[in-house]
Amino acid sequence: MTMRFTNVALIGKYQSPDVAESVLLIARYLRERGLEVWIEQGTASSIGQAEGFPVAAYEEIAAKCDLAVVVGGDGTMLTTARRLAERSVPLVGVNLGRLGFLTDIARKDALLRLGEILDGSFREESRFMLDAEVMRAGQRVFHTLALNDVVVNKGDLGRMIEFDLSIDGEFVYTQRSDGMIISTPTGSTAYALSANGPILHPSVGGIALVPLCPHALTARPVTLPDSCCIEIELLPPHDARVHFDGQARFDARAGDRVRLTRSPLAVRLLHPKSYSYFAMLREKLHWSAAPRHN
Amino acid sequence: MTMRFTNVALIGKYQSPDVAESVLLIARYLRERGLEVWIEQGTASSIGQAEGFPVAAYEEIAAKCDLAVVVGGDGTMLTTARRLAERSVPLVGVNLGRLGFLTDIARKDALLRLGEILDGSFREESRFMLDAEVMRAGQRVFHTLALNDVVVNKGDLGRMIEFDLSIDGEFVYTQRSDGMIISTPTGSTAYALSANGPILHPSVGGIALVPLCPHALTARPVTLPDSCCIEIELLPPHDARVHFDGQARFDARAGDRVRLTRSPLAVRLLHPKSYSYFAMLREKLHWSAAPRHN
Amino acid sequence: MTMRFTNVALIGKYQSPDVAESVLLIARYLRERGLEVWIEQGTASSIGQAEGFPVAAYEEIAAKCDLAVVVGGDGTMLTTARRLAERSVPLVGVNLGRLGFLTDIARKDALLRLGEILDGSFREESRFMLDAEVMRAGQRVFHTLALNDVVVNKGDLGRMIEFDLSIDGEFVYTQRSDGMIISTPTGSTAYALSANGPILHPSVGGIALVPLCPHALTARPVTLPDSCCIEIELLPPHDARVHFDGQARFDARAGDRVRLTRSPLAVRLLHPKSYSYFAMLREKLHWSAAPRHN
Amino acid sequence: MTMRFTNVALIGKYQSPDVAESVLLIARYLRERGLEVWIEQGTASSIGQAEGFPVAAYEEIAAKCDLAVVVGGDGTMLTTARRLAERSVPLVGVNLGRLGFLTDIARKDALLRLGEILDGSFREESRFMLDAEVMRAGQRVFHTLALNDVVVNKGDLGRMIEFDLSIDGEFVYTQRSDGMIISTPTGSTAYALSANGPILHPSVGGIALVPLCPHALTARPVTLPDSCCIEIELLPPHDARVHFDGQARFDARAGDRVRLTRSPLAVRLLHPKSYSYFAMLREKLHWSAAPRHN
Repeated sequence: MTMRFTNVALIGKYQSPDVAESVLLIARYLRERGLEVWIEQGTASSIGQAEGFPVAAYEEIAAKCDLAVVVGGDGTMLTTARRLAERSVPLVGVNLGRLGFLTDIARKDALLRLGEILDGSFREESRFMLDAEVMRAGQRVFHTLALNDVVVNKGDLGRMIEFDLSIDGEFVYTQRSDGMIISTPTGSTAYALSANGPILHPSVGGIALVPLCPHALTARPVTLPDSCCIEIELLPPHDARVHFDGQARFDARAGDRVRLTRSPLAVRLLHPKSYSYFAMLREKLHWSAAPRHN
Repeated sequence: MTMRFTNVALIGKYQSPDVAESVLLIARYLRERGLEVWIEQGTASSIGQAEGFPVAAYEEIAAKCDLAVVVGGDGTMLTTARRLAERSVPLVGVNLGRLGFLTDIARKDALLRLGEILDGSFREESRFMLDAEVMRAGQRVFHTLALNDVVVNKGDLGRMIEFDLSIDGEFVYTQRSDGMIISTPTGSTAYALSANGPILHPSVGGIALVPLCPHALTARPVTLPDSCCIEIELLPPHDARVHFDGQARFDARAGDRVRLTRSPLAVRLLHPKSYSYFAMLREKLHWSAAPRHN
Repeated sequence: MTMRFTNVALIGKYQSPDVAESVLLIARYLRERGLEVWIEQGTASSIGQAEGFPVAAYEEIAAKCDLAVVVGGDGTMLTTARRLAERSVPLVGVNLGRLGFLTDIARKDALLRLGEILDGSFREESRFMLDAEVMRAGQRVFHTLALNDVVVNKGDLGRMIEFDLSIDGEFVYTQRSDGMIISTPTGSTAYALSANGPILHPSVGGIALVPLCPHALTARPVTLPDSCCIEIELLPPHDARVHFDGQARFDARAGDRVRLTRSPLAVRLLHPKSYSYFAMLREKLHWSAAPRHN
Repeated sequence: MTMRFTNVALIGKYQSPDVAESVLLIARYLRERGLEVWIEQGTASSIGQAEGFPVAAYEEIAAKCDLAVVVGGDGTMLTTARRLAERSVPLVGVNLGRLGFLTDIARKDALLRLGEILDGSFREESRFMLDAEVMRAGQRVFHTLALNDVVVNKGDLGRMIEFDLSIDGEFVYTQRSDGMIISTPTGSTAYALSANGPILHPSVGGIALVPLCPHALTARPVTLPDSCCIEIELLPPHDARVHFDGQARFDARAGDRVRLTRSPLAVRLLHPKSYSYFAMLREKLHWSAAPRHN
């Protein structure tokens, strides 16, 4: 691949001064390689200095940059992915602590791996996002994107909610539960996994529906094709909280419909050549851990 | 769709004399509609008579017929699908007792629904199969197809087995467990579901790997794209039984590799227009059952 | 058993005028049998009339009555059990709609079964309760009883919480999850079951800990002896909601300790002779439901 | 506790010459402490020498010894427990490799910990066993004990089996599944855990029933009081394999009843004072493992 990078953005974990050193180290390295480097506005202000590197808001980054290097954890990648989604700026993730599913470059290897990527040695991968909207009385009252998941969850009262699920306009079932996770393959190793959801390989064109503590014992996770339209209608008197990537939140009312489709926008991830999805799973899920008894 | 049917086969549940009445009723109806009707050899012999209808082996049916009506349960559909796979003869399933996932026409509605289908009013659906082979010392020692699943299972000793899983030639993990189910979307509502596997909608291009009583608690079901090649290598000294659709069986030895890919052959199912996958799930999984407490 | 009943209370589902007919029917029947009958205050006011039957608050009922007949669902039984716990007034449950786990007499059989019970033909069963307290800086800031369960749950933010679990003063683990259910055998067929908890027969002296969407895949339900003291300490900055039988609620702060022991108080349930715990499970969990495929 | 030990048996892992060094090291240490030391017959023959230590069969050990030191894994402990059950000889477990649930003394600490135990500094714990018998036409055709579990499992054909479950003579349900695990608290962290069974603390007086791949999705693990009698009757035409602690095996026929009760015999385990059940769980289940994402 002969992609050339000229304008690179650096984005650090939200309100984390401790990314300063890594961010600046990478910024200097990129400048030395002759690239234009921008530091994301919030990052610049939380690291308290930017050594003269120009500062840019997400909108400018989306408009100007052909690469964004994210320094933080998976949460930072999720935010960045959603903010830069319109322009599909390629993302590289450098983790601060433990390896993340999305931040797959270890801090200590950051310059080496970035160098390889800038030299054109990388794997590009596309991850789809969910387009999520909340409809109320025929009007759209909320709209956003999610790379991991949308979670329709019981609200303040802590009581089960009740909703109808429809797929492509067809009624599927009425469910009573704590809620429902609607997850992309990317999100299938995050919250959905804790709720006993299935792992979906990133190249499966599927969306997983994972019920949270369903009242009926026969409710099971279902994987749907990513071409379908999923609707969840809250049955009165049930309100719900809707969470998007665990970051944005909307308070939905009885009667609201949460409508989900695959977004035409995709997230472009650049990985070092040595990246392996299965190696990542093995590491993160301790699949290499020793068996538990003799 | 303007598909025209002229030669129709009737296939009854294996060694079940009690399908006689239904099979003959349908056979007469089809003849009255001016179709050529064949009764499958084994069916003819188990119902003890065929009222003069010509009898045909599966091979002849595959060669001659443009429709096969299966009278029995899902097991009969699985057998028929595998036997007629080479020619992709369209299948219609009439259940004998309870509705099946694959035999979705109730016996009492059989003539009505068949009439509609012969009139051209139906939904056609394609279900993919797994191509399964067992390799030993570089030679293929077994080969078959499976519409539901391939199960690599502990053998006679009843002890856990140990095997390496590879995907597209890449090592994924070593697992100790009672075995592994490799399931198509069609099989995802069968045995795999009992083992806590995810339900895959038939139009998802995925294959589910569902571990059976894995020793490591972090082993979870994984859904892979149907384009990949899945290999399971039995680590010495572990032998295993390999089951295909719960019908064919192969005794694999330590060192054998079970290799699975999506078969280029597909099963064509014809459903009445009123068929709905979700309605079937609701019915079979009792999703419409009343909640269990107040 | 020669228990004699003389003062009976009638308690209806909270704010449910539709229990009026059943409550009054039973009240008249009990009066005809020569018993003193009290109608619980809230019940009397929600049914809008009491036909001259004396009205009593829970406290009076606890002091005076030697039997309480509950007309409603399991929720009404839970409330009553907690309100009358100090005096261990025996309870009989008449369900309004579907059979409940605790309200095991069908409305249509109510007079017949009550008659049998009054005649001394019944099974008495004891169910233990949890004594729950919340400690803050060494002070007890909340105290209540629970017959089903105590649920420590993520609060408003909808984010995972983090807490330390200790048993009899010994640290067990730090968990990140949506929360934890601590359930009695009675509660094991309620919310805990939806969260994949184990069913505990009422005569097992155990308390089940069931994690809600735990981050670590190796976190599993654990059943402890009912003699132990269970403590959950919220690690800063995590707040939590604590729910008791899904009825009372306490907003716990970071640093608070939720402490649970078996209460010396027990709930006495009277069942008709025909009652069977396993028959109830079979009915409620659809164990008698037909297998799902052929 | 002032228990005095005078005759100690040493039992090594079955047919494992590599235990020789540890067994002899411990034997010499015990002799130096003035104890009479016996080496179990099979152990002596597999280590190929016994340095003059007297050799004894299990029966003699049961009759003579007041302590048995087991060197191996949990499997060796299970065998020993069953062989010495009649006399309840106290057991100490030294693991060869990884810590086991039952072999909780690390090889490197063996002499130190044994010294403490001989000095009277230990915790004694009692674990109950299952008394298992198979009844055929009213006759007992098999009888044994199990410390971990009894597994009724599908046999050669690899097809689901069907059986009736009764508790204390009362019918509970008919189940179609791959089989059923009946587990003690001790076994609840072994095979039952892989099948999604609940962990039972050793001091819970309960027996867990854990279905293996049940056909009905509402079949769940149930914990029963250890005072009850559990019967599983194989419905024709279903045969089954019955496994006891994964060691003994019986081929049961259609119509056979497997009957399980708590044995009056118990296993006495001696642990070092530093032993902690929860610490063991944490270690074995990787509960201390780092959370899987940021």
